[in-house]
Amino acid sequence: MAENKRIVLAQRPEGMPDESHLKLESAPMPEPGEGEVLLRTIYLSLDPYMRSRMSAAKSYAQSVELGQVMEGGTVCEVMESKNPDWKPGDLVLGHLGWQAYGAVNPKGLRRLDPKDAPISTAVGILGMPGFTAFVGMVEHGRPKEGETIVVSAASGAVGQMVGQLSKHWGLRVVGVAGSQEKCDYVVNELGFDACVSHRSETLKDDLAAACPNGVDIYWENVGGKVLEAVIPLFNEFSRMPVCGVISQYNATGAPQGVDQLPGFMRAVLTKRLSVRGFIQFDHANRFKEFMTDIAPLVKSGKIKYREDVVQGLENAVTAFQGLLTGKNFGKLLVQVGEDPTRQ
Amino acid sequence: MAENKRIVLAQRPEGMPDESHLKLESAPMPEPGEGEVLLRTIYLSLDPYMRSRMSAAKSYAQSVELGQVMEGGTVCEVMESKNPDWKPGDLVLGHLGWQAYGAVNPKGLRRLDPKDAPISTAVGILGMPGFTAFVGMVEHGRPKEGETIVVSAASGAVGQMVGQLSKHWGLRVVGVAGSQEKCDYVVNELGFDACVSHRSETLKDDLAAACPNGVDIYWENVGGKVLEAVIPLFNEFSRMPVCGVISQYNATGAPQGVDQLPGFMRAVLTKRLSVRGFIQFDHANRFKEFMTDIAPLVKSGKIKYREDVVQGLENAVTAFQGLLTGKNFGKLLVQVGEDPTRQ
Repeated sequence: MAENKRIVLAQRPEGMPDESHLKLESAPMPEPGEGEVLLRTIYLSLDPYMRSRMSAAKSYAQSVELGQVMEGGTVCEVMESKNPDWKPGDLVLGHLGWQAYGAVNPKGLRRLDPKDAPISTAVGILGMPGFTAFVGMVEHGRPKEGETIVVSAASGAVGQMVGQLSKHWGLRVVGVAGSQEKCDYVVNELGFDACVSHRSETLKDDLAAACPNGVDIYWENVGGKVLEAVIPLFNEFSRMPVCGVISQYNATGAPQGVDQLPGFMRAVLTKRLSVRGFIQFDHANRFKEFMTDIAPLVKSGKIKYREDVVQGLENAVTAFQGLLTGKNFGKLLVQVGEDPTRQ
Repeated sequence: MAENKRIVLAQRPEGMPDESHLKLESAPMPEPGEGEVLLRTIYLSLDPYMRSRMSAAKSYAQSVELGQVMEGGTVCEVMESKNPDWKPGDLVLGHLGWQAYGAVNPKGLRRLDPKDAPISTAVGILGMPGFTAFVGMVEHGRPKEGETIVVSAASGAVGQMVGQLSKHWGLRVVGVAGSQEKCDYVVNELGFDACVSHRSETLKDDLAAACPNGVDIYWENVGGKVLEAVIPLFNEFSRMPVCGVISQYNATGAPQGVDQLPGFMRAVLTKRLSVRGFIQFDHANRFKEFMTDIAPLVKSGKIKYREDVVQGLENAVTAFQGLLTGKNFGKLLVQVGEDPTRQ
């Protein structure tokens, strides 16, 4: 009898999570009830927000309970259906979490057509990360042609979309990434105007040189020293959409990085900076607009994307650790099962 | 021959400014040129923003040059006029700075009528500080009836207006001030719902108890530990207009206070906080609305105010030091010369 492989939250991490916190286990194959479908996971999306779900601290969403399967967006295939609207072989966007199989009520599923776009994009450039980039920019970045934007985590799932949308809208786009290879990629492949490495000893000077007209928008994905380097460059009335502070997610003990920045509030005041945290689901009403306006740019190849696909659920924890330290190069996915569209 | 007493910036302070930085000196009485008027200072307004003007660091406005008179808003009387539009005895709002006399082109002056309101209010509740409160709230606080606002520096020039406007608009208003006397004043005289002392050992608990429904708006005047106490209380989609960070203005050496707050960016993200620095002069086009809508509330006594008037320009430096440490109680003014409307 087939079993379900899954990763449960066994213990809440302080600092970096590992296999003692995220435990791979076998469970009986789920059985769909009346009206339900049995799904098989093809791709599991790994995203930085998952780190917060592992903590008990109050956030915008519930923590994952101890002993429960870690949550996460997934691209799945219907294996068995007890619902007249679905049949085996249908491809869907679901939210099965870190597991190989799940039996669910199909109400919340979105049907995917591989003729529209590769199905993996439903959790990437055309899914939550891409939409995050879009709504964060239109709602809070408020870009104007000719302005300069700095995009942290530039080659990541969200950053690559932020930068390319900004180019599309006529901005000067400066990326910040963790290696020369990533910098070369966003400049040469994605069309960014410049990119600096946050591992450079001369980050502040490098960034200043790349932003001769200052910074009008800073897309905050990481916090810490990248923000510190941006602070002196802010122009008046700049905007700072806060999408994440990945450098802080594993922080323990004394505050560090972003919370220790001399002069941040001074800059907020004197530059009349607008700092705005946001979560894409607050703006779900704009998803249709995103699919109408932006998806064609992806389908036509005008907006490109890069995925970093790790094979096997058993490698998910290591992959997630790499995400928090910037080891991934592009949108991080775990391929949990065979992709029938790529045979 | 009469002389002009004035205070010039002799040296840029690191930390608290004193008489070695702000030097009282005598100068020849200024002579009005053709088209100019000679003004006598009645009231000099002392405001926290002046501390930034003493530093060379780039800010939203030019620093005062070494050797120049410290700048500042003043209520003045015309002594001598070489301009047909003005005559001796006219009362005006000007910007003479820290000095007893000045000869100026009257183009930028605003005529004051003591029948409208006490002339000192032109640099206080009906001047820059009151207007700061108004535009900061309508543009960036965006109050809604029933919400809770926390107002730091509650009994100060700006805070007293922020709190009373918020009561007028139907909010729960919680002040933070530096003494029991100030707290009693804003609750008993200004009608705040509650007030806590930032010198209390139990500030965090006191503030939490005063905000049973959390905080929707935090009016940031001070930075440091007050913000730290507010962070856990923010509701989703709260707003934080940043009017000043007075606790940081004299900071030297290692970052402290507001720049070292654990969890601030985390709160920005998870609560979708909107943090916005602003300066009243960016919104000068709303001054007329302020005078039309709000000035009558002051004139009728519905909105009250308290002034802290120090006698004599020779006491201005000590008074300014007190402003930076919260010794003043109400809007701080220096009476430089006789007020002809209070004889």
